[in-house]
Amino acid sequence: MSFFPASLENLIDQFAALPGIGRKSAQRLAFHVLALPEENALAFANAITEARRSVHCCKICQNLTEGEVCSICQSDRRDKTTICVVSEPRDVLSIERGHEYNGTYHVLHGVLSPMSHVGPEDIRIKELLHRVAEEDVEEVIMATNPDTEGEATAMYISRLLKPFQVKVTRLAYGIPVGSNLEFADDATLNRAIEGRTEM
Amino acid sequence: MSFFPASLENLIDQFAALPGIGRKSAQRLAFHVLALPEENALAFANAITEARRSVHCCKICQNLTEGEVCSICQSDRRDKTTICVVSEPRDVLSIERGHEYNGTYHVLHGVLSPMSHVGPEDIRIKELLHRVAEEDVEEVIMATNPDTEGEATAMYISRLLKPFQVKVTRLAYGIPVGSNLEFADDATLNRAIEGRTEM
Repeated sequence: MSFFPASLENLIDQFAALPGIGRKSAQRLAFHVLALPEENALAFANAITEARRSVHCCKICQNLTEGEVCSICQSDRRDKTTICVVSEPRDVLSIERGHEYNGTYHVLHGVLSPMSHVGPEDIRIKELLHRVAEEDVEEVIMATNPDTEGEATAMYISRLLKPFQVKVTRLAYGIPVGSNLEFADDATLNRAIEGRTEM
Repeated sequence: MSFFPASLENLIDQFAALPGIGRKSAQRLAFHVLALPEENALAFANAITEARRSVHCCKICQNLTEGEVCSICQSDRRDKTTICVVSEPRDVLSIERGHEYNGTYHVLHGVLSPMSHVGPEDIRIKELLHRVAEEDVEEVIMATNPDTEGEATAMYISRLLKPFQVKVTRLAYGIPVGSNLEFADDATLNRAIEGRTEM
């Protein structure tokens, strides 16, 4: 039951294929795009083509970049002896926002997930081992998400790193700053007690 | 504080400019597009360009179409003596879904809204008057939304149609089918009582 012209249906389908966009939202977005001035609509289309064409992975840390090497790997002011391992490019943004960490990153582009058929070959583990073997790395901080798959990935990688005699750490678990003990779940609270520090 | 390559930032900006898409969602969508196979990303970009290029308004009813005249206006099986006036193309879809209405449509592409500087010249009222004057129209059904602006628009148009001696009706107000009196607001309930019909 298609009451829309084919090219509009196609555009709706394209929007509906995006994550978190249902059929109704896709319709609304498609109508919005049709109502845009022609140059704005073309700018949107070009932004997609351009980003897809020019953005690729930094050959060192695998983060997204337009050059061969990303700005963090290029910077002289970053501590190259520390690598923070994250699962997605957006996690780099999250950590950078804190202005606390000054080392480099390694983006895995996924986590091990047997359920979704993602094995060690499908994420950028090989490239991390290569860096640790070749560069002068002192510490690898595992910063995957604290869920089952993130944990398993961190554990798997830390075991692979054993032979390199490098210090492997992971982000501290605990109560979020500004949060309330009352709302913390048992697992978090237990981890917070385990990981207690001296004042 | 841009940690992303320029073309990725641009794509995020483009997504964030869409209605109902916040900064975080825009990031997620942009990352999704980057992770797509190249041909899928290009297909998305082309869908935008193509839809914007080939979709325009039916010269009769102003609904979106790829041809000169839309399929409803072209059809021999539609009753051309009845015009249902709606504010947006998506409203045509809503009414068509019911398989009850067999007349034609007229899409205004907006409603009168002094607050947003939308006057009678900005929506397709002129085209409707032209149709009523030229074609053999017996009834115009006002099906704008039952909110203040939709009401005002319907009222305004019905007054303009007076001289043409055409029957002007509007959709019935009342309790939604399958709904519950308990949850109906006062205005709806009052309208439902006013508009009661004999059983």
